Amino acid sequence: MPETFEAKSTKSQLHAIDDALEDDNTGLVKEMLQQLQPCDIALLLESSRSRNRLVLWPLIEPELYSDVLEELSEDVRNGIINTMLPEKITDALEEMDTDDLVETLSTLPESVSQDLLATMDEQDRQRAELGLSYGEETAGFIMNTDTITLRPKINVDVILRYLRLKGEMPEHTDTLYVVDSEDKLMGGVAITKLITAAPDTPVESLIKDSISIPVDMEDGEVANLFERYNWLSAPVVDSNNHLVGRITIDDVVDIIREDAEHSMMSMAGLDDEEDTFAPVVKSTQRRTLWLGVNLFTALMAAAVSDMFEATLSELAVLAILNTIVPSMGGVAGNQTLTLVIRGMALGHVTARNARWLLSKELAIGFLNGIIWSVLIASVIALWKQDFMLGAVIAFAMMINMIAAGLAGASLPMIMRRLNIDPALAGSVILTTITDVVGIFAFLGTATWLLL
Amino acid sequence: MPETFEAKSTKSQLHAIDDALEDDNTGLVKEMLQQLQPCDIALLLESSRSRNRLVLWPLIEPELYSDVLEELSEDVRNGIINTMLPEKITDALEEMDTDDLVETLSTLPESVSQDLLATMDEQDRQRAELGLSYGEETAGFIMNTDTITLRPKINVDVILRYLRLKGEMPEHTDTLYVVDSEDKLMGGVAITKLITAAPDTPVESLIKDSISIPVDMEDGEVANLFERYNWLSAPVVDSNNHLVGRITIDDVVDIIREDAEHSMMSMAGLDDEEDTFAPVVKSTQRRTLWLGVNLFTALMAAAVSDMFEATLSELAVLAILNTIVPSMGGVAGNQTLTLVIRGMALGHVTARNARWLLSKELAIGFLNGIIWSVLIASVIALWKQDFMLGAVIAFAMMINMIAAGLAGASLPMIMRRLNIDPALAGSVILTTITDVVGIFAFLGTATWLLL
Repeated sequence: MPETFEAKSTKSQLHAIDDALEDDNTGLVKEMLQQLQPCDIALLLESSRSRNRLVLWPLIEPELYSDVLEELSEDVRNGIINTMLPEKITDALEEMDTDDLVETLSTLPESVSQDLLATMDEQDRQRAELGLSYGEETAGFIMNTDTITLRPKINVDVILRYLRLKGEMPEHTDTLYVVDSEDKLMGGVAITKLITAAPDTPVESLIKDSISIPVDMEDGEVANLFERYNWLSAPVVDSNNHLVGRITIDDVVDIIREDAEHSMMSMAGLDDEEDTFAPVVKSTQRRTLWLGVNLFTALMAAAVSDMFEATLSELAVLAILNTIVPSMGGVAGNQTLTLVIRGMALGHVTARNARWLLSKELAIGFLNGIIWSVLIASVIALWKQDFMLGAVIAFAMMINMIAAGLAGASLPMIMRRLNIDPALAGSVILTTITDVVGIFAFLGTATWLLL
Repeated sequence: MPETFEAKSTKSQLHAIDDALEDDNTGLVKEMLQQLQPCDIALLLESSRSRNRLVLWPLIEPELYSDVLEELSEDVRNGIINTMLPEKITDALEEMDTDDLVETLSTLPESVSQDLLATMDEQDRQRAELGLSYGEETAGFIMNTDTITLRPKINVDVILRYLRLKGEMPEHTDTLYVVDSEDKLMGGVAITKLITAAPDTPVESLIKDSISIPVDMEDGEVANLFERYNWLSAPVVDSNNHLVGRITIDDVVDIIREDAEHSMMSMAGLDDEEDTFAPVVKSTQRRTLWLGVNLFTALMAAAVSDMFEATLSELAVLAILNTIVPSMGGVAGNQTLTLVIRGMALGHVTARNARWLLSKELAIGFLNGIIWSVLIASVIALWKQDFMLGAVIAFAMMINMIAAGLAGASLPMIMRRLNIDPALAGSVILTTITDVVGIFAFLGTATWLLL
């Protein structure tokens, strides 16, 4: 009898391995690793610090290498492959499904992957090179080539007997594909239909009105289609409608997860492949770029303040309040930016409703401006007993909230037109705009009205 | 022959409907809506401003209502349900799969859902109330009850004949479940196995070592299991191992998408159900809370600066540079925070490796401190021709980078222990810490050394 899945039991197995590793009891570790499925071994490796990964890897059964490598994230996988002997890598690669093979090769340095390709057998090299030729982030890159195809005229009984002879089907097969005499795709037949149809039904009559995916479609769009139509798998065709492979939902799930993570990580200035347990120096390096960009923009904001040095030295209270308006603009702008980036990813925001959305976000900026102007003016007038100072900060807040709405809505649209990923650089550009506008508006108005 | 999927063709259909809507040509709109699948109608509604949704809805065929409502996000769906007659809502709800029915009811105001339940027929009310009783974000809430069960002793041929008689199977059926005489789950049999096995094989011998999901498991954990084990569906059991339903990958995909969006939206201070095309006032309301919290923290930072008013009025240059250290700390801290939040969501960060991770992020903070201290000191010494000022800002940078690493790594762990969602409030608490520490360190050191 199967046991109810105990997430805790996997966890405690992993903890026990951790303990044995601490005690340097490699014999015990090896024994315990044999109880685990490849995906659990992958989880163990991902949750271990990099030093321990190198201890664990040689203790894993070599026949599991390909299954474990398939489940690892790019950074962790490449770290391990770097320590393996070339012939062991080739062995592991040759056992992979085409999509995983292609993905693994594509993340390795060009020279390494070329060397590996040269040592692979003819058939594996060909399927790898074909997949690589479609280019990353396309349907061809993530598809598998293990389709079962049928001719239109044969009947259900013949097919069932053929499948019984064959003995097994590729993982995640829910549909068989019918092709004509020129190998062009006619459509798909669900295997549930094969089971429920009368034995003498010709397969032709069971074809559902299936749609196919062109081999060069972008993978994000493939994921949107799977989500929208609730597919489990979909056929991939070339420009002549020849069936070249199929994409299954498990790969699509990875794309959805990665795309969503990509936005979240990019917006915080991180590489989305960043490995939580990488060594300190490597992690520090990876975060440097973003901090450098931020230092530059912070210096820009300081340079704007610098233009008002005379005002600041006369009225220290301005120095104290100088961060409030930029900070509110940054938050409001980032709200709009995030919403528009998500809307574009889901396909809701298009060129057609962009103008409407822009005017909506402008109106929100205006409303926000009124609300927070009144509030901050009251707070400052009470705190600093200075009504005029309250009016100055209120005016600056109004200006900056409108600028935030405008920048937050238009930046991702402009960046997309320029083919720049808005999640990656949108936030930093936006913050620079709201900082500069906010400081200018506040210190400029103060110089004009308060001196 | 099926056509290659043309994303453009759906898009142009939607655009044509938009145009017809602009021209108030409702006859044409209605005709064009009949060409669309429910999921495409849902996309159209999601991408339309709220006013147009109310024009479109009555033009849709009522028999599609349940399928379209299922595909909509909470905000959009509730907006539409609000405009429908109660009996039409009941009709639509009764046609939904259990999981969609339960989800829809749970997002409606309590009084509305109670009224609707009262008008539903006995059977539908029971399945809805059962699902609702498990509570949101559990396996029971997202499962369907349309399982096909088998007895262990019958053979493949009998099953195939039974299925052929039945004529069709529930959507996304890849596994049938074997239960014993007490209805306890014995395991699952893949339908591909039924096809490839010899007709006289008893079903018992085809059971794969399947694992089942307890009905009260959290949905995020269910999603992690599906991802890790590449499942298409999984059986759900109660505490006595009775089969109560099954979860299919399409619902899991929604959870993965929602969880990932939730983190991204929360970190930007947005409600993750926020509808891009909601009316201005509603959107403004939804964003108010976060802006209010941010105003409070900005005022706190200002209050810290206020303590150094004497220093600031003596040295205006401090006012100019006062934002650099807090800003760098905020970015560095958010990098760590985001990484730890993701690590926790993926199950990589646990209580066991928390201490190690904390010391790693502290070390990165230290390294970051050295790098950016040296850099900022050089820039300031050159710009302001003041070596001592450079030393002061370098020291403050060092302190704040270490504080950022410490806060970024420990906050999500502390918040999780307190059952607070770190994605929701982590970023604002972190920024408050790095602002306060940064300003204190900079202005404090300056008061001590430069006056």
